[in-house]
Amino acid sequence: MEGARAATADGVRAAAQRIKGAAIVTPLLENEWLNERAGARVLIKAETLQHGGSFKFRGAMNRLSMLSPEERRRGVLAVSSGNHAQGVARAARLFGAPATIVMPKDAPAFKVAQVRAYGGDIVFYDRYTEDREAIGAAIAAERSLALAPPFDHVDTIEGQGTLALEAVEQARAIGAAFDAFIVCCGGGGMTAGCATILADISPNTELMIAEPAGFDETWASIRAGRRLKADVAQKTLCDALASPTPGEITFPILQRHVRAGFTVTDDEVSETIAFAAKYLKLVVEPGGAAALAAVYTRKFKGEGKTIGLTLSGGNIDPSLYATILGRFG
Amino acid sequence: MEGARAATADGVRAAAQRIKGAAIVTPLLENEWLNERAGARVLIKAETLQHGGSFKFRGAMNRLSMLSPEERRRGVLAVSSGNHAQGVARAARLFGAPATIVMPKDAPAFKVAQVRAYGGDIVFYDRYTEDREAIGAAIAAERSLALAPPFDHVDTIEGQGTLALEAVEQARAIGAAFDAFIVCCGGGGMTAGCATILADISPNTELMIAEPAGFDETWASIRAGRRLKADVAQKTLCDALASPTPGEITFPILQRHVRAGFTVTDDEVSETIAFAAKYLKLVVEPGGAAALAAVYTRKFKGEGKTIGLTLSGGNIDPSLYATILGRFG
Repeated sequence: MEGARAATADGVRAAAQRIKGAAIVTPLLENEWLNERAGARVLIKAETLQHGGSFKFRGAMNRLSMLSPEERRRGVLAVSSGNHAQGVARAARLFGAPATIVMPKDAPAFKVAQVRAYGGDIVFYDRYTEDREAIGAAIAAERSLALAPPFDHVDTIEGQGTLALEAVEQARAIGAAFDAFIVCCGGGGMTAGCATILADISPNTELMIAEPAGFDETWASIRAGRRLKADVAQKTLCDALASPTPGEITFPILQRHVRAGFTVTDDEVSETIAFAAKYLKLVVEPGGAAALAAVYTRKFKGEGKTIGLTLSGGNIDPSLYATILGRFG
Repeated sequence: MEGARAATADGVRAAAQRIKGAAIVTPLLENEWLNERAGARVLIKAETLQHGGSFKFRGAMNRLSMLSPEERRRGVLAVSSGNHAQGVARAARLFGAPATIVMPKDAPAFKVAQVRAYGGDIVFYDRYTEDREAIGAAIAAERSLALAPPFDHVDTIEGQGTLALEAVEQARAIGAAFDAFIVCCGGGGMTAGCATILADISPNTELMIAEPAGFDETWASIRAGRRLKADVAQKTLCDALASPTPGEITFPILQRHVRAGFTVTDDEVSETIAFAAKYLKLVVEPGGAAALAAVYTRKFKGEGKTIGLTLSGGNIDPSLYATILGRFG
């Protein structure tokens, strides 16, 4: 069965080879003001600088690479709030494969424009009333399209996990090792991928997640021992992390490996975005700033430690960005 | 005489050794949307991510390293619009040396705050009516302070030139060589440093400068064969590049090596800043965006070439940044 193979560290390493050259080796950045604020050494994996402005291209590229030429010829379908959509559209274009993207109709305008710029064909849905998975599955079946799932697929998980493999190698090159690694968590694909590779190459690193208020059901699910569901009617600035429940495949991996979870509010994320602009000189979108917010707000008390974190995406509408900077800058 | 030694490629290499570990090896970044816009391969040396938010720390650190312990004990003085000020204050703090900074009273508030955060002692002057060099020289003489000039000193030039040494090595590591290298140019310290090292290690690279409208006297001076003076009463968003005339030491180096100059307006720079936020996910200040603006506006027609450029600083007031993003985003 497709996706039934378990994610492994070797799978992440194979994915890294597969996406090599196509994906950007994003820098691991350090900033003294952030270190001072955290009382720690903070190393930022800046996936904002990845193709498509987020880590999503890694998983999408790996997934597309694993399809047969015949599958690619027929095309792929992805459901996504906008970042995975860009990753899939870009990867599909590299292979000359048509990409159909199911996106919420309230996705940020910038994300919609970028998916189109990469040649993706968009089908909109209402994320408050419609089931995106059902819509996606129906279109995929009808048009014989292969699925490129945003998180709940082993190819996606292993591809997304390559960022932690890179980050550990980059940290080693400067003589550092992560005591903790904090991941922005939506459906848990990146977290599961990072968990898989970190357990193998950096077993002393404590894996942690940051989630937006209202969509912090992953850490709650881990504590409850079962997959809880967030109320999708809630609003959050972190559109990239507004998935209602941990994935079927990702959840058991997260249960095994995630040691702590932090919930960050829209205001905390906004303040963190302004800090990132002023001091880090990096543009980050709300969902991409969740892990940084956990450090910036000192919800994670990591004094004296070496902390890795994902700055997972930077696709923010300029108008929202200007508003946040005006309010918190 | 101090500063009389000529800048050399070996001097830049020695400076690179001297600042190693203290300065950040900033990434050389590439972005597909910028490449597409330029019809070229554009490699961005992101000095926005340097300590103090600009390349200035490189020259300041080199200068401080070259002073005697006794000179450092007495302290250093720098005249600066704000970026060099941060570089000097930070370098001085590393050596436990007091730093006196002469800054225009209309310098961006963020720069003033950051100089203070690094422990610099600020003396303000009026850049429309007072001569900053004279003020600086008087205070330095009175207090027996060593000068850390913003551009017109061999230690500064060689320190600032380390960014081009790094950039060429980083480009080589990805199999690239610069056909052109475009530098944001104020007094010409970074340009002279880049010229010195590029002539040695990458002689086929054409060195070019970008200057703000009204303060584009460097390229005009090169064409005229003598140092012209800009009218300092003019306004520009590019405070970091508003030096009125090329340096005495930098000018002959620039005359020998600079092949082209581009003038960019406030509006062009603003549009470039918004592009950098949306597509590059990088925060850049007006003066730091001049070289990128020369490419973004296609004033430099570099189709098919590999273009290196400096993104030289990111210290922009959040309110101005929000205004620019609101207007051009």
